[in-house]
Amino acid sequence: MKTMRRIITLTTDFGTRDGFSGALKGVILGINPDATIVDISHEITPHDVAEGAIVFAVAAKYFPPDAIHVVVVDPGVGGARRALALQAGETFFVAPDNGVLSLAMTHPLRAVQLTKPEFWLPRVSSTFHGRDIFAPVAAHLSLGVSLDTLGEPVASIARLPFDAPAPDADGNISGRVIHVDRFGNLLTNIPSEMVERRDASRLTVEIAGQVIRGLKRTYGDGARGQVIALPSSSWLLEIAVREGSAAEKLNVSVGAILTVR
Amino acid sequence: MKTMRRIITLTTDFGTRDGFSGALKGVILGINPDATIVDISHEITPHDVAEGAIVFAVAAKYFPPDAIHVVVVDPGVGGARRALALQAGETFFVAPDNGVLSLAMTHPLRAVQLTKPEFWLPRVSSTFHGRDIFAPVAAHLSLGVSLDTLGEPVASIARLPFDAPAPDADGNISGRVIHVDRFGNLLTNIPSEMVERRDASRLTVEIAGQVIRGLKRTYGDGARGQVIALPSSSWLLEIAVREGSAAEKLNVSVGAILTVR
Amino acid sequence: MKTMRRIITLTTDFGTRDGFSGALKGVILGINPDATIVDISHEITPHDVAEGAIVFAVAAKYFPPDAIHVVVVDPGVGGARRALALQAGETFFVAPDNGVLSLAMTHPLRAVQLTKPEFWLPRVSSTFHGRDIFAPVAAHLSLGVSLDTLGEPVASIARLPFDAPAPDADGNISGRVIHVDRFGNLLTNIPSEMVERRDASRLTVEIAGQVIRGLKRTYGDGARGQVIALPSSSWLLEIAVREGSAAEKLNVSVGAILTVR
Repeated sequence: MKTMRRIITLTTDFGTRDGFSGALKGVILGINPDATIVDISHEITPHDVAEGAIVFAVAAKYFPPDAIHVVVVDPGVGGARRALALQAGETFFVAPDNGVLSLAMTHPLRAVQLTKPEFWLPRVSSTFHGRDIFAPVAAHLSLGVSLDTLGEPVASIARLPFDAPAPDADGNISGRVIHVDRFGNLLTNIPSEMVERRDASRLTVEIAGQVIRGLKRTYGDGARGQVIALPSSSWLLEIAVREGSAAEKLNVSVGAILTVR
Repeated sequence: MKTMRRIITLTTDFGTRDGFSGALKGVILGINPDATIVDISHEITPHDVAEGAIVFAVAAKYFPPDAIHVVVVDPGVGGARRALALQAGETFFVAPDNGVLSLAMTHPLRAVQLTKPEFWLPRVSSTFHGRDIFAPVAAHLSLGVSLDTLGEPVASIARLPFDAPAPDADGNISGRVIHVDRFGNLLTNIPSEMVERRDASRLTVEIAGQVIRGLKRTYGDGARGQVIALPSSSWLLEIAVREGSAAEKLNVSVGAILTVR
Repeated sequence: MKTMRRIITLTTDFGTRDGFSGALKGVILGINPDATIVDISHEITPHDVAEGAIVFAVAAKYFPPDAIHVVVVDPGVGGARRALALQAGETFFVAPDNGVLSLAMTHPLRAVQLTKPEFWLPRVSSTFHGRDIFAPVAAHLSLGVSLDTLGEPVASIARLPFDAPAPDADGNISGRVIHVDRFGNLLTNIPSEMVERRDASRLTVEIAGQVIRGLKRTYGDGARGQVIALPSSSWLLEIAVREGSAAEKLNVSVGAILTVR
């Protein structure tokens, strides 16, 4: 059996309770026993393609360039949506064509629709393409199968609207919360460099009726219980509470609007 | 130190918070540093042997035939129940003798009771045989230790009642819900081929006072919010709601009765 | 690229939903593709350094002596607390200097403060040193980089107060609950050998107004629903309910006081 060491990452909404992600790993290791499989997350909110796109993009940039990324948040499984493999340099992505790669794949070089069943499991279900199509395709890619072999080229892929906000005429920036992490920190769609350029002492951030003054550097720069704004570790503006949950304190969730002045 | 690359899967009710599954992995890698350890699930409901049996069986069939499966849902740990290793072809299973392998092990060739402490940890607790007995035994199996070396042959093993339902005189099939997955989909004990053979347009499924007409192919074939019946990815009849939870919508859980007419 | 097989364990409060632990793994494998990464837990209660110390210590002793342990529960990230690497024999530890290693590192041979950015990611955030400092340092250690290369020696490290209780003048032992596991079992800070030495038939344990008589050996030795005391698998006194939750039954949590008479 041919084998090749190569990283295959998994990002899904399958959870870890039902054995779904385990089945993907069994399939991959059955094709390439030398694959190094890494879980990025299986806890994406069921069917939440946008959340999957964000969590995946934030983590994926910390993987070596020759990683193969399987991203399956796939409410349209078995329906009309296409199944894709994409290549950008040495990196491969395998995912449904529903925008889940929107934030990670800024410059896809090539994309194919998966149409060659010889790279899938022999028996393909209508409801679990992660196991039956995406996992085996990723495993075959890890063995050196070329993108073109897997299916027909596609001209464009689905994208979700994740545009970075621009300053208005007064220089104010309106953004929104795109993710709430385990700690209750609010990740926004405003790149922190847009904010760090400004005079931190005069800066204010308005969110949920609160006005946050200034830009902190890390959580400990706030008083306990204080809502602060700071650059996140994913280089976006973040709203946080030291050793507390900004989401609870402000009672906000994904989609909440904020304004930087 | 002898090493051998071989897959060892873990299915337990240990959770992922307390470090229990981490300890199993430390033990295994201490004996065989080349083992490829794969989590099937650590989120089996505590002490729920039947749930463990189902989740394990569904995932296990997607692993290569030379995998070694450790399945520890073990409410009787330290008591009279036997600890077993079993072999079916190239596949090994290590588990307590409480029926947790009922669905996966249809034709065990050989089974032994684990009675040889030289293949266990030097100090064995009374409450954590997963770490102290099952994990080290699996690791020794992965190094090529033979089944017979591990203990005494046993003639029969415990089995849970998981019989597939048969049609009654009128051709109706009564079944039950055996698992509710993360998405709220209801997995039943009725093989989908029993249902697919029938005229899908005239088929009805009754569950929780609702009548579902016809058999769909995938989730998207239902309207949003509609309860549908379809073949599951584990080739059993499934009840689902498109982008919703059938368990919530019907207010049912494991054990609920359904009838296919 | 240099590679070396070596175990790197991860114990964090990052959760598994947001991709944080995935990012650590990407960083490690980018530096040493041959590292064997093992999750001990990512479900430590956010910012709970003491819980992290306990969960880590209980699992870590089951890993081979040449493992490298990354332990990041780090409420002070980006602030004044030091980042450390420590060596005890062949074992390495990488962690913030906040006491999270208190229970595992009984005899550190050497400790250095991490001050050499050439072993970190090129761009270091102020809020995610797990990814930007601790993970890459662990990966470099796994390639054979020596402790001294990573920074300046430190004379002492932070410790949490985890003293084992001593019997009072009457021979009674007062202890406390230090961890509640997934099953609702209560782990105490009383070494089980302190209790096992005594006459089990005359022993009583008082907790939450209940008096438990005698010492059992395993869960099944109790009647269903009965609160029992027994030696835990981590060799500490444990309070449990057979196939139930002692935490719920007694309505107690971490910090609850108990007395052995």
